[in-house]
Amino acid sequence: MSIEMIRAKHRQALGLMRAHGIDTWLLQFARETGLRPDPLDYLVGAGVTWPSAFLLNQDGATAAIVGSGDAGTFEATGLWSELRAFRNGPREDLLDVLDKWDPKAIGVTWSTSDETADGITHGMYQLLESMLAGTRFADRLVSAGGLAGAVRSIKLPEEIEAIARTVKLTEDLLERIEHRLEPGITEIGLQGQVHDWVRKAGWKFSWDDEFCPMVNFGQPAFMGHAGPTDRALQPGDVIHVDIGLIVDGFASDLQRTWYMRRPGETEAPPDVKRTFDAVRASLDAGVAAIRPGAKGFEVDAASRSAVEEWDFPEPGFAFGHNCGRVAHDGSGILGPEWERYGDAPRVTIREGNVFAVEMDLGVPDYGGVIGLEEEVVVTAEGARTLSSRPQRELKLLG
Amino acid sequence: MSIEMIRAKHRQALGLMRAHGIDTWLLQFARETGLRPDPLDYLVGAGVTWPSAFLLNQDGATAAIVGSGDAGTFEATGLWSELRAFRNGPREDLLDVLDKWDPKAIGVTWSTSDETADGITHGMYQLLESMLAGTRFADRLVSAGGLAGAVRSIKLPEEIEAIARTVKLTEDLLERIEHRLEPGITEIGLQGQVHDWVRKAGWKFSWDDEFCPMVNFGQPAFMGHAGPTDRALQPGDVIHVDIGLIVDGFASDLQRTWYMRRPGETEAPPDVKRTFDAVRASLDAGVAAIRPGAKGFEVDAASRSAVEEWDFPEPGFAFGHNCGRVAHDGSGILGPEWERYGDAPRVTIREGNVFAVEMDLGVPDYGGVIGLEEEVVVTAEGARTLSSRPQRELKLLG
Repeated sequence: MSIEMIRAKHRQALGLMRAHGIDTWLLQFARETGLRPDPLDYLVGAGVTWPSAFLLNQDGATAAIVGSGDAGTFEATGLWSELRAFRNGPREDLLDVLDKWDPKAIGVTWSTSDETADGITHGMYQLLESMLAGTRFADRLVSAGGLAGAVRSIKLPEEIEAIARTVKLTEDLLERIEHRLEPGITEIGLQGQVHDWVRKAGWKFSWDDEFCPMVNFGQPAFMGHAGPTDRALQPGDVIHVDIGLIVDGFASDLQRTWYMRRPGETEAPPDVKRTFDAVRASLDAGVAAIRPGAKGFEVDAASRSAVEEWDFPEPGFAFGHNCGRVAHDGSGILGPEWERYGDAPRVTIREGNVFAVEMDLGVPDYGGVIGLEEEVVVTAEGARTLSSRPQRELKLLG
Repeated sequence: MSIEMIRAKHRQALGLMRAHGIDTWLLQFARETGLRPDPLDYLVGAGVTWPSAFLLNQDGATAAIVGSGDAGTFEATGLWSELRAFRNGPREDLLDVLDKWDPKAIGVTWSTSDETADGITHGMYQLLESMLAGTRFADRLVSAGGLAGAVRSIKLPEEIEAIARTVKLTEDLLERIEHRLEPGITEIGLQGQVHDWVRKAGWKFSWDDEFCPMVNFGQPAFMGHAGPTDRALQPGDVIHVDIGLIVDGFASDLQRTWYMRRPGETEAPPDVKRTFDAVRASLDAGVAAIRPGAKGFEVDAASRSAVEEWDFPEPGFAFGHNCGRVAHDGSGILGPEWERYGDAPRVTIREGNVFAVEMDLGVPDYGGVIGLEEEVVVTAEGARTLSSRPQRELKLLG
């Protein structure tokens, strides 16, 4: 990621720290990030080997405390007003920096409900506590999970542009996919073709290759993360594709649905059409409820009510999630207040959030899944779609 | 990774649980592992989306508690005697499984000094505590860091074979590299060539591509993780390459050193030769100290004394580290008792450990780095090298 982007995110964080009650933010306290990437790495810019601390102070000062073998990498970025390289360990330098800054509240990046704001491992947290034991900082640790979520989820204009670029490339890819949708191609065959294209372009998928794109011809084996099968496309099939790319560090997550007509058919069967209409209406109902200040669960409820009005079974998933550096970008969701989502549905929607919004429903008495998914950005006026070609009608093939 | 390998590691873990005072091991409690891989994933076999629990009980029973969307993946492995899929969250099923097994000590995978045994994030640990609050399990959580370290670092015969295969392929690659070592080739050019080969073979590097292989012609810019430069190879240069591959899930980490003779030279300059001899002697001194029951810091000290006897400055790094699924495979090190290593140097060496052992010294009054690194497996009799072609003499080119 570019140094300029990191600098801009640091500036943004500085503007949010006071509201979150944090004087110094320990952005990252991690080791061997090659083995285990830290979700805060986008504010740090490179990996570390030994236990390393990265701090941002309310006055704009920054400090990186890293093992001597890693120092060159961080020196090169010019991001850190203090760069301290240790041989033995980070404790002495960490205490020295804290002594100078004297924060009353030190934000440590962890969260029970937001995985992208849950940076520090439990072992590293214990190590941090042991390093501060006996100092005046021992009881000044607070969670910076809310701050981390805000910084990640309020996208800067250049981040929104980057996501829109990936969305556009994904829509282009979906057009190439559409040209391959002819009777006889298998789910696995189509996925393999897409893998070839994406590999050649040097892009990555937003989730496990094995499940990306998800391809369903007709009735899927089960809902959820099912891999493609050797089922061949046939006339009469509902075709559902869920795909996400990561290009230049920013992700997309889109769904499209087609119907392959039988000989003599001019349109899709009534159940298929009705399900598409219900999906579109439920998607629209959720999107209409998105505005700064609304809660995630309120948006989800608006969409869920529409599903109920259309007399479909209640969906088993959330209506939307942040989309950014990864497809599931944490920092709250547009979902119901179920245990598995923790506090995430109670997040307040803010201008600059980018959400992937989605609705999938099975076609009753027929089989197949109809799904639509788009990216939207939250503006003062509400949601604006980032997709240049959002799907509004069921696409007919054959 | 193969299901059979996971099963074998579960069996191995069962044999070690009692000695570590653990009745039920919560192998993994994680979410969104696509964003953030868990180092314990090698005992679980697939990624998860929602907060998911994987447990191994002392009687051999296993349980996977996962979101309904992930259930299919885990059902397919057949690894779990109980597979529970939730819509709302894992709490109820987790308590139900614990009620049935009634463990007195529940091992949670975290460690202050071993990153490969530091699985649970601080946020997930807090979430776990909140789920157990008010139950009889609330005060039964203990660290399973030591157990996780033992299971990871005591390699099974099939794991040792897999590492040896990767070492062999890396040695083959080093021979291809040697053929490219002609005056005029740059450090960057050589690295680019190796990247091509490795990409075509479908392998991965053991660490960041940018630094793998590390290539030094003559005096490096600084010790540590320096990237290659556009410096061209010249007669009189000491050539140092540090490379690691991951093939079929197992890693290597090797160093080799050459000397490019000047016209008329039949051997390397005395300082270069003497440094090579010191490196080899210090490597051998450390390897000779490796035996089951020895401590990591004792092995490091044996090597460090040899460096001192040869009158070279004290190395700023550890003599050895476990090598396995990744190059730095955690679970203790063969290093000095410096703060940055935590408890890791006090680990007890055990039969079946596989270490990368290394020594690098700068050539005094000349420039360049001489480094040797090999993989060894610990047997009842001591260390046995896994390299089929360990470097014993300085290789002369030109």
